[in-house]
Amino acid sequence: MTVLHNDTFLRALLKQPVDYTPIWMMRQAGRYLSEYKATRVRAGSFLELCKNTELATEVTIQPLDRFALDAAILFSDILTVPDAMGLGLYFAEGEGPKFTRPVQSEADVAALAVPDMDKLRYVFDAVASIRRALNGRVPLIGFSGSPFTLACYMVEGGGSKEFRTIKSMLYARPDLLHRILEINAAAVTAYLNEQIAAGAQAVQIFDSWGGVLSDAAFEEFSLRYLTQIINGLQREAEGQRVPVIVFVKGGGLWLEKMSTCGADALGLDWTCNIGAARQRVGAQVALQGNFDPMALFGTPDAIEAEVARILAAYGSGSGHVFNLGHGINQFTNPEHAKVLVDAVHRLSRPYHP
Amino acid sequence: MTVLHNDTFLRALLKQPVDYTPIWMMRQAGRYLSEYKATRVRAGSFLELCKNTELATEVTIQPLDRFALDAAILFSDILTVPDAMGLGLYFAEGEGPKFTRPVQSEADVAALAVPDMDKLRYVFDAVASIRRALNGRVPLIGFSGSPFTLACYMVEGGGSKEFRTIKSMLYARPDLLHRILEINAAAVTAYLNEQIAAGAQAVQIFDSWGGVLSDAAFEEFSLRYLTQIINGLQREAEGQRVPVIVFVKGGGLWLEKMSTCGADALGLDWTCNIGAARQRVGAQVALQGNFDPMALFGTPDAIEAEVARILAAYGSGSGHVFNLGHGINQFTNPEHAKVLVDAVHRLSRPYHP
Repeated sequence: MTVLHNDTFLRALLKQPVDYTPIWMMRQAGRYLSEYKATRVRAGSFLELCKNTELATEVTIQPLDRFALDAAILFSDILTVPDAMGLGLYFAEGEGPKFTRPVQSEADVAALAVPDMDKLRYVFDAVASIRRALNGRVPLIGFSGSPFTLACYMVEGGGSKEFRTIKSMLYARPDLLHRILEINAAAVTAYLNEQIAAGAQAVQIFDSWGGVLSDAAFEEFSLRYLTQIINGLQREAEGQRVPVIVFVKGGGLWLEKMSTCGADALGLDWTCNIGAARQRVGAQVALQGNFDPMALFGTPDAIEAEVARILAAYGSGSGHVFNLGHGINQFTNPEHAKVLVDAVHRLSRPYHP
Repeated sequence: MTVLHNDTFLRALLKQPVDYTPIWMMRQAGRYLSEYKATRVRAGSFLELCKNTELATEVTIQPLDRFALDAAILFSDILTVPDAMGLGLYFAEGEGPKFTRPVQSEADVAALAVPDMDKLRYVFDAVASIRRALNGRVPLIGFSGSPFTLACYMVEGGGSKEFRTIKSMLYARPDLLHRILEINAAAVTAYLNEQIAAGAQAVQIFDSWGGVLSDAAFEEFSLRYLTQIINGLQREAEGQRVPVIVFVKGGGLWLEKMSTCGADALGLDWTCNIGAARQRVGAQVALQGNFDPMALFGTPDAIEAEVARILAAYGSGSGHVFNLGHGINQFTNPEHAKVLVDAVHRLSRPYHP
């Protein structure tokens, strides 16, 4: 394998000394970039773009050519796994992801199984292709949705505001939801291990909807399965540790219990003070975040002030990967993303003496 | 004025001894009740229902006739204040509230002013009418939206998922947003004082959207104005303390700083463990919450188990008002609401020896 020229991201996740705070941006390959939109038109649709090795590689690299980012992330979707389970993923224009066959009845649950990983070969092919294209420039992050977040889409049949269907199942038929989550956890474990085997140098598990649960339900229906997955992951590849990042949007209240799930780092949205979060988790894990993506709609001066505030809150020393607290918005001015990336690099040096 | 027959709710807010944990439910007068739907049909529309003293009184009382609730809450809407500012509130079918004249430009902000309270006379008339109808049965809660939450609707022109317009203003033109918030704070102060003068025995300020802010922005753009309002409120009426409840949905991370805003009680959504919250706020404030409204879609046994869990987490002693962590869902089975109310009363007695 090629030499990694910039390992700042991996070092920060492992709390090893770094020269500056590394940064990547969730959804950094996306619609706010004109070159992404052009490639997507060539692909035909979002799903076809995910499944086209060459084009998925192309869009993954695009933001690196614009900004001095410290990591690349596989271009894919969190719903590839339930799609491979045969639930019929599609994207209704302007409505987000949907499934033609949601998992709601006892019979639906009984029919569910861990998918053959061959159905997800296009993802692993993309990982291998992106690694070749990166050629050691920065590390590549693989990812998956969490068992609970996948279950939200699988049970609701799409996005939701109130999560009434899955919460009804949770409170009325917890046995059914646990069965779905067990299958999801086994599938995600296999899926991430295949990504690691194909070349992913770190992995992130997105629990986008864990934050809608009560604290007790989060432990029982999400954290338990996150822990199970992490216990089953291949943690070394190419002689290097493969760090695991867990990001629970809206999970700021639960950092202490999340810090013992086996992850190397926890993602934070922007509602947490990252200094307080660092104190709460102690030496256990690194932290990733926590810039409000909407702050990119401010002036360049306001963006720099917000970067300075977050860096000061975290304080000196390694263990912080700068990121947005959620995916970058499609209407973001790319010049503002550049202001952000450069400000993080420049302003963080005094914190790494 | 008449004698108050059940003051358990007021006593719990002031941390005075009680025999059991009192309960009311956010949006307890609402679409999950067939009698509410019938009255609303007679009123014509939701806004006409809010503006009709007799019918607003009728729907406020309805849930008390079904359930052994320990408080009534004024039937109204949080957007009455910006409506009285002349922004043109309307409800598009199935789309939630909208304003015909959102506040977005510098000129829009310059034209904004505290409304004449006479334009809100229908609200104060409803308060007085409900007090008469209650005849001392339980206390009556008045309420308002918070300055920031009102501003969200005023600037976005309606509900929002991403809050891109108001956050763009916050990060690019904080001066404009502060001007809106100052006007809102003055208006809300006058509005709540008029409700207290008309007979409200406690007031709640709903910061439904404060939780979308970063921790620093929450202090600057929401908490600061909440504190300002509370400082300006009439805290005694009819020789009794008028307790103030502040409910910031998604604000569980900020309880410590909220506990010094002058409120008697803080509302919690369901993501917080109420025992941990109690430890964090200490003796400073009472707590209200924190049952997930979606747990009412569980079985009666599951509802009782969830009640038991929350009561045990809070522990012994006064200072807890049981409530949902958000408004009751329109598809809730009213029989399940009854299970909840009765379970809270029955299961809480051992915690008040």
